[in-house]
Amino acid sequence: MKIARFSHSGAINFGLLDDDALVVLDGDPMYAGFDTTGERVPLAEATLLAPVIPRSKIVAIGKNYHDHAAEMGGTAPEEPLLFLKPNTAVVGPHDRIVLPPQSRQVEHEGELAVVIGSVAKNVRASDAASVIYGYTIANDVTARDLQRADGQWSRAKGFDTFCPLGPVIETEFTQDQAVIETRVNGDVRQHAPLTDMIHSVGSIIEYASAVFTLLPGDVILTGTPAGVGALVAGDTVEVEVTGIGTLANRVG
Amino acid sequence: MKIARFSHSGAINFGLLDDDALVVLDGDPMYAGFDTTGERVPLAEATLLAPVIPRSKIVAIGKNYHDHAAEMGGTAPEEPLLFLKPNTAVVGPHDRIVLPPQSRQVEHEGELAVVIGSVAKNVRASDAASVIYGYTIANDVTARDLQRADGQWSRAKGFDTFCPLGPVIETEFTQDQAVIETRVNGDVRQHAPLTDMIHSVGSIIEYASAVFTLLPGDVILTGTPAGVGALVAGDTVEVEVTGIGTLANRVG
Repeated sequence: MKIARFSHSGAINFGLLDDDALVVLDGDPMYAGFDTTGERVPLAEATLLAPVIPRSKIVAIGKNYHDHAAEMGGTAPEEPLLFLKPNTAVVGPHDRIVLPPQSRQVEHEGELAVVIGSVAKNVRASDAASVIYGYTIANDVTARDLQRADGQWSRAKGFDTFCPLGPVIETEFTQDQAVIETRVNGDVRQHAPLTDMIHSVGSIIEYASAVFTLLPGDVILTGTPAGVGALVAGDTVEVEVTGIGTLANRVG
Repeated sequence: MKIARFSHSGAINFGLLDDDALVVLDGDPMYAGFDTTGERVPLAEATLLAPVIPRSKIVAIGKNYHDHAAEMGGTAPEEPLLFLKPNTAVVGPHDRIVLPPQSRQVEHEGELAVVIGSVAKNVRASDAASVIYGYTIANDVTARDLQRADGQWSRAKGFDTFCPLGPVIETEFTQDQAVIETRVNGDVRQHAPLTDMIHSVGSIIEYASAVFTLLPGDVILTGTPAGVGALVAGDTVEVEVTGIGTLANRVG
């Protein structure tokens, strides 16, 4: 199922994507289940929103593709490298990524994102599927100059609008045949099979849940492949993952 | 006023500290104001909880006292060095700090904490008081070995129980004459006047709010003075700030 959060006629609801319509759900399906109201909203009339706003954490992983670790001038760490992004960075599909005056080098990082569905602590990789609600797409927007200057990445990756999420949460996603591709104004910048990840989703959940309790709605960004590059005002950046959809945002 | 959050007879409420009693408030005063229910609970019968659980961010500042920057083997950065702790790290007064098996070197960092009271973006230092709800005390517990190994500090500072907060939020606090002191089993480990901070609370809020939108309930940890040191099982660590109180936690 593809779960969307959307606004329509002044109301915000969750819905299931069904061809070119949204079947309206009775509440947030993460907590309220999948009962429908019976209403259908044409997709073209709805404004899609970020499908989840984490109430606790966005846990992200650095250097989780060998070719990206190399382009950043290092090798991939043996263990997942964790960092946090704040929930105030989240925006939805088609929202604007705002270039902050503090940076002269803002870059895209297209990523597969995992949405956690239940309280999770010390979960084994082999049991990780039981705490996954679904998958969506993220752009881990990064002020590369500030990332290098600060050492700590919280500022460079934490600006408002620096975590577009969407367009939907796919609950039945499998990575095996999926490709992630990032395009800027239609030009392909990043393209990799998701099987190129160094640390699997399961092993990331095992590692992270041994540190933090993961809560329903927490989002895990699984790292970006090679090809990160600049965004400038007026650009449109798209991140596409086979089987989930395309997350598109303008840069302003 | 000193605002506490507490449990008593199976209910969780907010209250105002009045000598040795808590005057029970009708809801969370951050949103509901200071109407009281008329009930008084003896302080000795109440279990104090963390006075706030951030729904968005704990923003923390590294190396904000010259003597601590020196003991960490560096100089203080010219700009505040921001990092994030997750809300799942928050525990309350007298809760246990749990030593994780991943680390062999967990240390205390006593800090003054600022609680944000209103939505704040691009706030000038001179206007910062208008977005401050009050002040409390934090222990920015840190797995020092993992902090050094990872480079990024999110794991080392993000473990569950690594952010004790409390015992109360003081709404009328002034730093001028205040001292922060951290004791382990009664021995003084850290002791400094709060005027030794490099970046003031106002300038930290200006800097942070130019990056993130700060939301009501967000907490800012303002850095720790020299004297950080190990915690081992069985220790009791206390952080005291003049005019606010003492945050005490056992280590297990």
